[in-house]
Amino acid sequence: MEEKYGRLTLPTDLDIVEETLKLKEQLKADAIRDCDGTLMPEELVNCGAKIYATYYTTRKDNEWAMANPDEVQQEYLITDRYTAFDNELKIELMKGFHTQQLKVNEIDDPKEWWEVIDRTTGEVVNDWDYADGFVTIHNTKKFHVYTVSFLAFLIWDPVHMYNFITNDWKDAPHQMTFDVRQPKTQEYVKNKLRKFCEENKHVDVIRFTTFFHQFTLTFDDKKREKFVEWFGYSASVSPYILRKFEKWAGYKFRPEFIVDQGYHNSTFRPISKEFKDYIEFQQIEVCKLAKELVDIVHSYGKEAMMFLGDHWIGTEPYGKYFETIGLDAVVGSVGNGVTLRMISDIKGIKYTEGRFLPYFFPDVFTEGGDPIKEAKENWLQARRAILRSPLDRIGYGGYLKLAVNWPGFIETITKVIDEFREIHEYSKGSKSYTAPFKVAILNQWGSIRRWMSNQVHHAIWYREIYSYVGVIECLSGMPIDVEFINFDDIKNGIDKDIKVIINAGAAGTSWSGHEAWLDEAVVTTIREWVYNGGGFIGVGEPSAIQHQGRFFQLSDVMGVDKEVGYTMSTDKYNDLNPNHYLLDDINELDFGEGMPGVYATGEDYQVLAMDQKYTQLVVNKYGKGRSIYFAGLPYTVTNCRLLLKALYYVSQNENLLKKYFVSNVYTEIAVFEETRKIAVINNTYDVQKTDLYIENELVSTLELKPMEMRWVDF
Amino acid sequence: MEEKYGRLTLPTDLDIVEETLKLKEQLKADAIRDCDGTLMPEELVNCGAKIYATYYTTRKDNEWAMANPDEVQQEYLITDRYTAFDNELKIELMKGFHTQQLKVNEIDDPKEWWEVIDRTTGEVVNDWDYADGFVTIHNTKKFHVYTVSFLAFLIWDPVHMYNFITNDWKDAPHQMTFDVRQPKTQEYVKNKLRKFCEENKHVDVIRFTTFFHQFTLTFDDKKREKFVEWFGYSASVSPYILRKFEKWAGYKFRPEFIVDQGYHNSTFRPISKEFKDYIEFQQIEVCKLAKELVDIVHSYGKEAMMFLGDHWIGTEPYGKYFETIGLDAVVGSVGNGVTLRMISDIKGIKYTEGRFLPYFFPDVFTEGGDPIKEAKENWLQARRAILRSPLDRIGYGGYLKLAVNWPGFIETITKVIDEFREIHEYSKGSKSYTAPFKVAILNQWGSIRRWMSNQVHHAIWYREIYSYVGVIECLSGMPIDVEFINFDDIKNGIDKDIKVIINAGAAGTSWSGHEAWLDEAVVTTIREWVYNGGGFIGVGEPSAIQHQGRFFQLSDVMGVDKEVGYTMSTDKYNDLNPNHYLLDDINELDFGEGMPGVYATGEDYQVLAMDQKYTQLVVNKYGKGRSIYFAGLPYTVTNCRLLLKALYYVSQNENLLKKYFVSNVYTEIAVFEETRKIAVINNTYDVQKTDLYIENELVSTLELKPMEMRWVDF
Repeated sequence: MEEKYGRLTLPTDLDIVEETLKLKEQLKADAIRDCDGTLMPEELVNCGAKIYATYYTTRKDNEWAMANPDEVQQEYLITDRYTAFDNELKIELMKGFHTQQLKVNEIDDPKEWWEVIDRTTGEVVNDWDYADGFVTIHNTKKFHVYTVSFLAFLIWDPVHMYNFITNDWKDAPHQMTFDVRQPKTQEYVKNKLRKFCEENKHVDVIRFTTFFHQFTLTFDDKKREKFVEWFGYSASVSPYILRKFEKWAGYKFRPEFIVDQGYHNSTFRPISKEFKDYIEFQQIEVCKLAKELVDIVHSYGKEAMMFLGDHWIGTEPYGKYFETIGLDAVVGSVGNGVTLRMISDIKGIKYTEGRFLPYFFPDVFTEGGDPIKEAKENWLQARRAILRSPLDRIGYGGYLKLAVNWPGFIETITKVIDEFREIHEYSKGSKSYTAPFKVAILNQWGSIRRWMSNQVHHAIWYREIYSYVGVIECLSGMPIDVEFINFDDIKNGIDKDIKVIINAGAAGTSWSGHEAWLDEAVVTTIREWVYNGGGFIGVGEPSAIQHQGRFFQLSDVMGVDKEVGYTMSTDKYNDLNPNHYLLDDINELDFGEGMPGVYATGEDYQVLAMDQKYTQLVVNKYGKGRSIYFAGLPYTVTNCRLLLKALYYVSQNENLLKKYFVSNVYTEIAVFEETRKIAVINNTYDVQKTDLYIENELVSTLELKPMEMRWVDF
Repeated sequence: MEEKYGRLTLPTDLDIVEETLKLKEQLKADAIRDCDGTLMPEELVNCGAKIYATYYTTRKDNEWAMANPDEVQQEYLITDRYTAFDNELKIELMKGFHTQQLKVNEIDDPKEWWEVIDRTTGEVVNDWDYADGFVTIHNTKKFHVYTVSFLAFLIWDPVHMYNFITNDWKDAPHQMTFDVRQPKTQEYVKNKLRKFCEENKHVDVIRFTTFFHQFTLTFDDKKREKFVEWFGYSASVSPYILRKFEKWAGYKFRPEFIVDQGYHNSTFRPISKEFKDYIEFQQIEVCKLAKELVDIVHSYGKEAMMFLGDHWIGTEPYGKYFETIGLDAVVGSVGNGVTLRMISDIKGIKYTEGRFLPYFFPDVFTEGGDPIKEAKENWLQARRAILRSPLDRIGYGGYLKLAVNWPGFIETITKVIDEFREIHEYSKGSKSYTAPFKVAILNQWGSIRRWMSNQVHHAIWYREIYSYVGVIECLSGMPIDVEFINFDDIKNGIDKDIKVIINAGAAGTSWSGHEAWLDEAVVTTIREWVYNGGGFIGVGEPSAIQHQGRFFQLSDVMGVDKEVGYTMSTDKYNDLNPNHYLLDDINELDFGEGMPGVYATGEDYQVLAMDQKYTQLVVNKYGKGRSIYFAGLPYTVTNCRLLLKALYYVSQNENLLKKYFVSNVYTEIAVFEETRKIAVINNTYDVQKTDLYIENELVSTLELKPMEMRWVDF
């Protein structure tokens, strides 16, 4: 069968030519790639596989960087906070930063591009000067706290530095950066790309890693990670760019728009108008220039692929201008269902490719590491998402030698690759069945950051987020069409296909919405929509902002509010009553970190779970509509079922749940109506028995092996 | 010895005359009292004990109340929140309230005294009218939420209602209220008091319960407690009073000043200017009128005693005008060390009396109840506080019959009474030794609410507060002079005797301080003070308000800040190092509910305790000063020791700790230098062995019986 071949990319290196060839045959791979730190052996260029070349537009050319110091990339930094103990304060700018990574920009006028701020009052201070790495602030107010925001050159590419440190490279020269947005470098880089295409006829795919601006990744003076924001724009600046921005935006630029009190516009921060503008401006400009490079690649008959990460700033794939780049493909790292959907849902390209875990790096392929377990866990979470929105290809990265030498590892990924191809074989490109209603995730970012809500780095566990990320991780593998909407989308009229709105996040964040909930148009629109039959799900601190007697602004819709100390004197009478449709097949409840202090209020609620006297799971009626509050919803196999039922319940479609259904909560079902194929998956490492329902009828009982994916015709 | 007699008040009732006389001799009581619901038997009036008469100025006279409906007491109520689903909204005012307790005031003009508010925008709405218990709001905005604030008459005294319900009284008539502040009633009540004094020559002490305004205590339509705010002023209103307030304050009154979005100015709320004004005005007026009643009592040669509770609004004993009332005594309920100090620290009176727990009520003296255990626990917490600031008298309340019939109970309280008298005998009125520095508790209330910080009702456990109340509960029995200061006190210059400032509370509350921390004068004054050698202790969310890059505004002083989601991208490197003076004799750490997300920052910190990657106990250096952060500090015997050492540590007086010291953390020491007597107390129910140090020298090793108080001469 054709589907038993291809769709697979393997990494290689100079020292593993024979093994690569052997494995290519064994796994029926159809593409081979080099990585950062590895090279493509000449012996492999004619092996019949597609050849990917990792391509860096902004580094790996120290000669150019050194010859053009004014066009080295820049980053806005902010110093630590220093208290004035006297009437003068001398601040060493690079203190706490790594001087091998960053160097103060002394070329552009500090008085024009830097900013000294009194953080006790928030006022901009002008009485200061700079010399020899120090800013001296004069006439400081005693015991006020000051910061300096300043520009620095990125004299060591952050990703190269990261790989260098992580892999303990010894004598590789530090790769400097250069800014492709600036005129001299732009011409140089385009010509260099043309030359590369000409000289590397064997290369089929130019894999950009990535385009021009690295996400914010700053190291401290001990070479430890200091700040890493995967969505960060702080390293996408230069006076050249900022002057253009001022012209475009029509107002004066301030460093504070970027450094943002030191938070660097973390994606959790409520979005400022200026930062939103800056993103828009950068996306317009970056996509325009990226298109020029892609056009060059195409002119040589090659494909252009983008890595979703590293220098991806400005190319956010759900941004308005991404499709105009004209890329052939996007490849990215798949850590779980969410990161898979982040890639597989991208529109406007020919194909997507997922780099599966684990990377073949020495940190996992080592004593105490368990790469087989990582590969299995990764596959269980990825598989359910692939069944909803398939990647076109998968692949691996790192040092192939490590994988080949690890007993049992190749067998494990062989199973993964086979199942991946099976999904394509049986679906034949058709989409699996989804419920006849759409679900919307509501936050300040909306569609531009599809599958990215409540994320720090993709797929890394944080105590503060896993109780929220669970919502989209569960959804990533569910038979549900998901939209990501923002508060403007609410005000512009809720899409009529949307039957459930979910708001999940911590108070004060962009994800919960913060000040957006003070907008009367937002709250009244949602209230009216639920009142007329819509379904609302709140997780954690939904609609949270203290205002006019409530902490949750939709407390009336949800039937809950949070005790922040002001209603300690108000008696609460919350009684537990877990008898409810939602829980009739759920034996274990897991709210993750939970949310202290939430209590039910009003007359139409039912409390399904409590923690001491506070509530964790509450359903509420509001007019013709329904709402559910969860104290948290971490990703667990059981919570996938709980959320699925919650969606059918709040949208009042309970009667449709068993159109296609498996009774065992540890199993899930994906139905390809066009090809009349059903996949039933076992999401556990144990044997599972489940009843299979089609059109509300029990059609069979299946026994699934651990992790099994069973295909059933119907 | 004289001290083996007296200082004790017993309750009595008609049906227990002989037992009272017997118990009076047995316990050597010197005063007898009636209670709400009990009567003083005639046989006892000449038994040689002082006779207390519980006196109510505002109730127990339904005839007067019914004849003067316009002078019945009033309360500001706010309805539930109602959403307008249409352009008109009809709100039933009394919905959710108990119509036996409260009745809409239809006498005073609703248009003048009521307020309809759009809670979606906060705007006052004028297009409404009232009829037959309903307010109809016209031209409502759809899906906006509305409330009505209105005046209601208190047709059943809340405390009488509470006692009626709690004791399951059946046929007692509901006692109505009347407002002593109003002219007709004022005259009437004064005359009645004169008459009572004349007719009750046997009464020695008029025990006011209390004066004129009940704290806010509202019942719902099911006769359940709906809202109870021990500090609440919402039932101290009437158009008569409010017109006077307007004149005094110089601005127009608004119901919102009282109902406060429905929070009724909970003591946890940041204090508004208007509410602060209202408290001041009420205290002036109430104290003036209370003085007139006290003068009447004195003119008959009797003593005037005030119960700290019930109708105590306006007489807060640490308020500016309290001493002008001229009371002889204050009596109050002692739930723990804090509530004891709340009474025993009162100035400007001749003596204080503590009502010990348990009350002789059927809820404790019943199957499943354990009044002996309650009495022991109560004594252990009270005793350590009495050693620092003694009450002059103790007593009990309720139905004496219940206590007499409970086996072993009288023996238990005999021991309590003996130890109480011993303290007076050995101290001879002198004060026990305190450290040579003062400690200040800083919050928005300051000295007016001494020993009342983070309290809901006195001594009742709430999950949200016990981790903060522990601070003052520990302090209540420590050899430390404690001040309670507010943010104005900081700005007016920190008292030079204060060497430690403590800020303990949840973000957003009056206790933490909320917007007070945006005041640059506050933060710079404290920074400078610590920098020059002061000690700062933060508990929970000290100095918390989001501003200019920090959540804790004193993060520089404390070396900690809290993750609210904005620094998820900032790497934190907090390592545990518990080797520290503070912990060298502490084996168990208890932070209560703790505080998630706090991390150490800066260069001068040491992390002594962690919860996963976050910190719970951090010491920091700041200039010449020191700081300690606690994630929480519930009251435990061990935490008393930990806090004691923390105070000596941050004030840099470690070398003075062993001036008088007991090594065992489960024991404490109180030293009466004047009488050369030392009390060593065992705060546990086990035997404890401890070394005793005087002037840094080990002088002996003691073995203490469970709960023992051992007196040592020196």
